[in-house]
Amino acid sequence: MTKKKVSDELLTRISEKLYVAVVCDTLDKLGVRENVLRYDIRPLYPEARIVGRAHTALSVDVYEIPEEPYKLEMEAVDTLKPGDCLVVTTNGSTKTSFWGELLSTAAQARGAVGAIVDGFTRDTKAIMEMRFPVFVRGISPYDSKGRSEVMDIDCPIRCGDVLVHPGDIMFADYDGAVCIPQDLAEEVVRLAEEKVSGENTVREELAQGIPVKEVFAKYGIL
Amino acid sequence: MTKKKVSDELLTRISEKLYVAVVCDTLDKLGVRENVLRYDIRPLYPEARIVGRAHTALSVDVYEIPEEPYKLEMEAVDTLKPGDCLVVTTNGSTKTSFWGELLSTAAQARGAVGAIVDGFTRDTKAIMEMRFPVFVRGISPYDSKGRSEVMDIDCPIRCGDVLVHPGDIMFADYDGAVCIPQDLAEEVVRLAEEKVSGENTVREELAQGIPVKEVFAKYGIL
Amino acid sequence: MTKKKVSDELLTRISEKLYVAVVCDTLDKLGVRENVLRYDIRPLYPEARIVGRAHTALSVDVYEIPEEPYKLEMEAVDTLKPGDCLVVTTNGSTKTSFWGELLSTAAQARGAVGAIVDGFTRDTKAIMEMRFPVFVRGISPYDSKGRSEVMDIDCPIRCGDVLVHPGDIMFADYDGAVCIPQDLAEEVVRLAEEKVSGENTVREELAQGIPVKEVFAKYGIL
Amino acid sequence: MTKKKVSDELLTRISEKLYVAVVCDTLDKLGVRENVLRYDIRPLYPEARIVGRAHTALSVDVYEIPEEPYKLEMEAVDTLKPGDCLVVTTNGSTKTSFWGELLSTAAQARGAVGAIVDGFTRDTKAIMEMRFPVFVRGISPYDSKGRSEVMDIDCPIRCGDVLVHPGDIMFADYDGAVCIPQDLAEEVVRLAEEKVSGENTVREELAQGIPVKEVFAKYGIL
Amino acid sequence: MTKKKVSDELLTRISEKLYVAVVCDTLDKLGVRENVLRYDIRPLYPEARIVGRAHTALSVDVYEIPEEPYKLEMEAVDTLKPGDCLVVTTNGSTKTSFWGELLSTAAQARGAVGAIVDGFTRDTKAIMEMRFPVFVRGISPYDSKGRSEVMDIDCPIRCGDVLVHPGDIMFADYDGAVCIPQDLAEEVVRLAEEKVSGENTVREELAQGIPVKEVFAKYGIL
Amino acid sequence: MTKKKVSDELLTRISEKLYVAVVCDTLDKLGVRENVLRYDIRPLYPEARIVGRAHTALSVDVYEIPEEPYKLEMEAVDTLKPGDCLVVTTNGSTKTSFWGELLSTAAQARGAVGAIVDGFTRDTKAIMEMRFPVFVRGISPYDSKGRSEVMDIDCPIRCGDVLVHPGDIMFADYDGAVCIPQDLAEEVVRLAEEKVSGENTVREELAQGIPVKEVFAKYGIL
Repeated sequence: MTKKKVSDELLTRISEKLYVAVVCDTLDKLGVRENVLRYDIRPLYPEARIVGRAHTALSVDVYEIPEEPYKLEMEAVDTLKPGDCLVVTTNGSTKTSFWGELLSTAAQARGAVGAIVDGFTRDTKAIMEMRFPVFVRGISPYDSKGRSEVMDIDCPIRCGDVLVHPGDIMFADYDGAVCIPQDLAEEVVRLAEEKVSGENTVREELAQGIPVKEVFAKYGIL
Repeated sequence: MTKKKVSDELLTRISEKLYVAVVCDTLDKLGVRENVLRYDIRPLYPEARIVGRAHTALSVDVYEIPEEPYKLEMEAVDTLKPGDCLVVTTNGSTKTSFWGELLSTAAQARGAVGAIVDGFTRDTKAIMEMRFPVFVRGISPYDSKGRSEVMDIDCPIRCGDVLVHPGDIMFADYDGAVCIPQDLAEEVVRLAEEKVSGENTVREELAQGIPVKEVFAKYGIL
Repeated sequence: MTKKKVSDELLTRISEKLYVAVVCDTLDKLGVRENVLRYDIRPLYPEARIVGRAHTALSVDVYEIPEEPYKLEMEAVDTLKPGDCLVVTTNGSTKTSFWGELLSTAAQARGAVGAIVDGFTRDTKAIMEMRFPVFVRGISPYDSKGRSEVMDIDCPIRCGDVLVHPGDIMFADYDGAVCIPQDLAEEVVRLAEEKVSGENTVREELAQGIPVKEVFAKYGIL
Repeated sequence: MTKKKVSDELLTRISEKLYVAVVCDTLDKLGVRENVLRYDIRPLYPEARIVGRAHTALSVDVYEIPEEPYKLEMEAVDTLKPGDCLVVTTNGSTKTSFWGELLSTAAQARGAVGAIVDGFTRDTKAIMEMRFPVFVRGISPYDSKGRSEVMDIDCPIRCGDVLVHPGDIMFADYDGAVCIPQDLAEEVVRLAEEKVSGENTVREELAQGIPVKEVFAKYGIL
Repeated sequence: MTKKKVSDELLTRISEKLYVAVVCDTLDKLGVRENVLRYDIRPLYPEARIVGRAHTALSVDVYEIPEEPYKLEMEAVDTLKPGDCLVVTTNGSTKTSFWGELLSTAAQARGAVGAIVDGFTRDTKAIMEMRFPVFVRGISPYDSKGRSEVMDIDCPIRCGDVLVHPGDIMFADYDGAVCIPQDLAEEVVRLAEEKVSGENTVREELAQGIPVKEVFAKYGIL
Repeated sequence: MTKKKVSDELLTRISEKLYVAVVCDTLDKLGVRENVLRYDIRPLYPEARIVGRAHTALSVDVYEIPEEPYKLEMEAVDTLKPGDCLVVTTNGSTKTSFWGELLSTAAQARGAVGAIVDGFTRDTKAIMEMRFPVFVRGISPYDSKGRSEVMDIDCPIRCGDVLVHPGDIMFADYDGAVCIPQDLAEEVVRLAEEKVSGENTVREELAQGIPVKEVFAKYGIL
């Protein structure tokens, strides 16, 4: 896997200058119109924000405690690199939580920048207090032991209906989470930075009460 | 359209003395028992509150970028009058956001008092910081261009399963949003104001531990 | 009904030393693996926390105003004892709110410690300000009169898919709500207290970056 | 209850000359636009057809076996009169079947013309073989004992989201089920009979390939 | 629009030699893995089968009767050409039926080969008797007048989550409906015809009880 | 695994004398009240009927074609024994079909008596023509290759929300599917046979118009 393809410098530019909505507009312009994770994947707290490289895991509900519980789940966390974002699909499970405080602690200790789980978490308040950004579909106090197992890591997954490949850039803020294909990353960031400055002008004119129609005709931005 | 029928003075009385639940009880008494918008239309922040005249828009999902994108959506905003609340149905779309910061800026600049959208918004934190009250079903960073188009404005719509006519009063707080038919507005406000004072007495007696049964028998309020 | 079986002292130990997730792990160990209420039953505010004895009510949607409205609903509240938690099923209703500020006031005045309703509430901000912990599936400003009636109290109910008997311990925090069968209460609390201290050690080691796999092998806790 | 208001003769005219869709169009014309039961209430077999007076029951999920199981459920069936259609709401239950072969046998023996249940049935093939028309949301082999109880009969109910009063006409065929308010019954039947003959003309012209637009302009029927 | 690109001869080959599942396998092989319409779009009767060129319409719920009801809906039907299949999205509406017997009659008279509607139909039995193949999400007796309007025809639509362009081949049988992009049509048909003959061999060997593993190793077909 | 515990003779008695509803009533009596698979698992044709020993498989959605596609899925079929019923969970997948004609052919060749899949099938009409009884949640023409993989066989699974152990008896007819724990099989069959004869008497009396209440009081059967 070529997960290092996207430079730290690019991640920093995204983090400092961009927000998810403007990146989506830019992806739209490039014809990538369906890379936003489903709307029910939400951050635990409004300030949660992730910019990182996707490190993926595929989890599935099970119905008995396996011989080696947590085996690949632990490996998923232990193999996180600085700048990684763990991205997990649980295939829609509502029967357990996948994530929790101890795994957040371990992930944070390895330099991971967040977790996006198409499933549930627990230890929610502790994670919020750690300020470790976690995006999930819901909350449940159940432990995953005997309820779900990770069956593969570092593989393509669908998380929130979006196909995520290891090494793609995950960018998430309070508006949602988007997957930026690594090949497009440079171009997306450059174009998005341009759009941001245009929006500032538009905002000022709209605040003065100039009709939207007129402002849009002038700048082509809405 | 006779959107001016409801006076500003009446809107002020609602805003200063009433809350949504007591208005619902009053509508119940008048036999209007199904005018609360569906429970999944929620405010972006707990203090969000709207009292305004309905200005409506009907949006629909589309699958290509139209020749004149945003055309009627911009008109919906540019025709907002002071005291108006934009009310929008998206026919249940989960594929895009309808609303955002720039439109909030434009609406606020025209004196609009809020937006209620049976759909999604984006730029959520910016809107929260503006304190522009927006009620939505969800959040998505997608732009509406090529995803949805407004096909009609100032028409009857169903928003959150409730039939809303232009000029009806929209009243929304943390408990939800209700549509007060304009013909009933005067009567509803008068009766609701009466009920509010009764509730204060009841609350005091219940706080003293007097059984609910006894207090309800005395005042007929619960 | 033998609702006094669980001592106040035990409730205090739960309240002071435990959290819901660790109790769930302990119930798992004892083979009680499905006693967490459905994930969509959520607290009104993050700090809401309940430890109390279940006092149950079974509510059903109705379509006309009964001769004696609220009759059993009032009785459900008037019969609350100190340390009780009202637990209500509405059979999935989305048509009305079951709970509100006045009932919260009455319940609090009787020493009740909270309410868990597989349904909706209203007067949400007032209840949040009272700091009366309420867990619900949603919010609606509708009054229950002519919309739902309590048909039985102090009976077994399914709330959030979990069978709750009167006198069971309800324990709820931001991670969710769990029902502890009263016969297991002593054992659960004792085992959970042990697990808490183990978790503290694990957390520290993970924070130092020791691999999850290694820490789990050492302590058997995750 | 004035359930006899609608004459047998009128029921016969509906049964012999009309179908549900044309009755819906007629109700539309009279401004009654929301009286069709939700689309997921379906007949057990394509030829199932009901024209009868509503005899209602309100059922609710319970979680223990009551002292007198089936009490009001049996009364609901034992009080059926010739020409009655049992209409039942289960408040959305998916946990049990409400109906079955033995109750169908008893209902048929009393002259009832069918059952419409916003819930489940069992003994499905036996009922199909009896040709007793039953419309339901689904099928489940569970008995209702200790799973649901009828708490009221001959009361207004919402069945499939439609408010049904005892004595209203229930008309159901493969297109769905509609509730004709008894006060409108005479007028609806007269107008619907007229529309049926118009449709025959339209059908013939469309079959000849005359454009829909032209045929609709001529007859105003589609 | 170049809807004639796909020859009648190719449609005949599909109709005579292929079935939907084998076409899906072939599209898979070509990397087109998401062109099957959502599973809840079902035929009215098991033998219903469609092979035709997509003629599209975009319908949306409305809440008042427009000045010219049915306007574009009639045009959608009046512009059908022999070999066309009407493909309609209703944006998920459950409030009305879009299709019916009269429109089926008109469509059939124009040589249309079927209709696929991401919505409801009525006059179901009459359509079944006509043997006009219609695929829908459900059945409802409601007329569309004042409930939905067609806002565009011959445009790209999403029907059952699949993007359908005018002129694409729609192929539907009891297993479901698939959209074959017109550019791939020739290649898909050729490859699918080859796979069909392979499957016959595999079926025979499996019927003899030869292990699946062995047969699959030999032919690479399952 | 002791899958042979339940004798062929017992399976024959079930098959010849019982139906699913009466077995559910009997399990109710023994306190096993939640062993019916979810109501949306339906037979492909009304006469489909299964009595067999559970042979289980756990399937999960994947997003790339594995090195050895179908590996455990083929093993699940190749290890079927006469009298076995394949029982599969797909963890709620709607993205693919799990089952099809070729696997039905192979299963039938091994003496398997049916398949119950908490997922989808394809080749539906061919399977119906083979009269191989298959119970599924839906139909989709997609192949499972690169869409789902079996990750375990002969393990406990939840299928339709019911925990099924290898060797349990699966009994399914048009009313639904029930899992009879193997330890209870003898007792269930004996008690159910008794109930069947009682029901015949009850049916006759109800057909004569004797009130349900009276008949139930006499026989205690409904």
